[in-house]
Amino acid sequence: MQTKVLIVGAGAIGAFYGALLAKAGANVAVVCRSDYEVVKSQGYQINSDVLGQWGFHPEQIVTRAKEYQGQADYVILCSKITPDVNRAELIKDALHAGTSIVLIQNGIEVEQELASAFPGNELISGLAFICSNRTAPGVIHHLAYGKLTLGNFPHGCSEKTRHLINLFAQSGIECIGMDDIVTGRWIKCVWNAPFNPLSVLAGGLPTKAILDTQEPLIRGIMQEVCQIAAACGHPLPDDIIDININNTHAMPPYKTSMLLDFERGNVMETEVILGNTLRAAERESVDAPRIKTLYALMKLIELSNQNSRGMTM
Amino acid sequence: MQTKVLIVGAGAIGAFYGALLAKAGANVAVVCRSDYEVVKSQGYQINSDVLGQWGFHPEQIVTRAKEYQGQADYVILCSKITPDVNRAELIKDALHAGTSIVLIQNGIEVEQELASAFPGNELISGLAFICSNRTAPGVIHHLAYGKLTLGNFPHGCSEKTRHLINLFAQSGIECIGMDDIVTGRWIKCVWNAPFNPLSVLAGGLPTKAILDTQEPLIRGIMQEVCQIAAACGHPLPDDIIDININNTHAMPPYKTSMLLDFERGNVMETEVILGNTLRAAERESVDAPRIKTLYALMKLIELSNQNSRGMTM
Repeated sequence: MQTKVLIVGAGAIGAFYGALLAKAGANVAVVCRSDYEVVKSQGYQINSDVLGQWGFHPEQIVTRAKEYQGQADYVILCSKITPDVNRAELIKDALHAGTSIVLIQNGIEVEQELASAFPGNELISGLAFICSNRTAPGVIHHLAYGKLTLGNFPHGCSEKTRHLINLFAQSGIECIGMDDIVTGRWIKCVWNAPFNPLSVLAGGLPTKAILDTQEPLIRGIMQEVCQIAAACGHPLPDDIIDININNTHAMPPYKTSMLLDFERGNVMETEVILGNTLRAAERESVDAPRIKTLYALMKLIELSNQNSRGMTM
Repeated sequence: MQTKVLIVGAGAIGAFYGALLAKAGANVAVVCRSDYEVVKSQGYQINSDVLGQWGFHPEQIVTRAKEYQGQADYVILCSKITPDVNRAELIKDALHAGTSIVLIQNGIEVEQELASAFPGNELISGLAFICSNRTAPGVIHHLAYGKLTLGNFPHGCSEKTRHLINLFAQSGIECIGMDDIVTGRWIKCVWNAPFNPLSVLAGGLPTKAILDTQEPLIRGIMQEVCQIAAACGHPLPDDIIDININNTHAMPPYKTSMLLDFERGNVMETEVILGNTLRAAERESVDAPRIKTLYALMKLIELSNQNSRGMTM
């Protein structure tokens, strides 16, 4: 039987992964709001520098989860997590007893809210390492990477999770299972916590310039993430900082997602990356002065942006 | 006998204080570079919102200290301290045996360099609390404040320092002597260390908005300054943080000097305010993670500015 998937938040990330699952033979529907008219008439155009170009025509295109017809095996939430969005509300009308909820979203401790809201549904938590942009309504440009890591929350890797992993793998991207996906989130946070906010606060510098001149600060921030993760019961590998530093040296100059959001005037993921990390630190009584400083500065930058947008000249 | 004063760095601050000393009867000369032609022909126009308007015609207007004729009782250095300026070079040709060197300059531990260069000259260290701008060549707009605090380095308040204090007091501004001016610098740093960099890093927010939303961070930074000052042998009063917080709440929305420099594309006083504070912390083995983070971010902002200036489109 064809696997039924509903993608909620079908933008640069969601439409790309939805298109891959359709390629692998799944029945893929999308909840799509801003580009609804274009996608309804033409579908998506996927331009991947890695996998080529193709059109993606979802089986259903709806503007809200409640309009979805059928019982999805997987509801995959791919929207950015920002304080103004209630994620449970976004998906609740599309859930049935056997529906697995899949999060392909950035951030720390982003699962419990949905696990509590839907205790009867399997929750699969996922991390995407991808560089993908929406270049026009319904047009997605996939520039690089694409690797997914999936695992059940709070731990494990069920048969149904493995089925989804296989579908992604068939479509041509790397997808791996992880028994401790929460540790996976902390590992990603080791990179995200310094580079995302610093790229914004440093006035748009690429990651390489930041690392070349301020490596001690980067290491200090990464060390704080490791201490918080360990206090939360997720000790990270001893060499995780060196690995991240070396990998970043080897990366081409790169604009972080937070910097792209900042430049576009979009809401940034300050709360799920820094805010949730700090709330975990406070709960576990770990001192994290560098991350606290970055978080405060990001809140000030957000305030400054709001002020300048609201200003009448 | 008329007191002879040479002002070195006769911009918004130096020209204003020089004009005040001339008002009080001193023989005041200036070393003036960028506005030399205008000042040579017309003198300075001082427009003070506090003390009224008047013309200030220095007795000598020179472009370098060596052109100064006579033996100054006081050589007053009012330039900003930035890494590209050698202060000893700026003043050395105007010094005689009896010349007192006066620093009216921002920052921490700014005296030793000159004390070492000129061990035979009395060194008077001064702090200005002033809001003054150069609005056109030779035109100085004094908006508010103006209070000076003077004291000998490393401590004491000599008769000659008292004489200078009296001259300033006669001219209409508040000028007080301080036996421990180094402690005075640390006290000023309690305010400068958070608000100067944060105003730049927060995208131009005024001090009040920063304080209203991020008071815990401000207090954390101030606490680090207090710890460093104490380790350096200059314990600050217990209520210094509360006083600074309360005073800042009471201030009108205010743009810091670092923010003004940033907006104008000028070199900022990052090194003398944050850099010297951190070097003192390292010397005394005091941990100051918040200030370290701010310093690193300011270096990144400076790098980002250089990059964007050097960029050809």
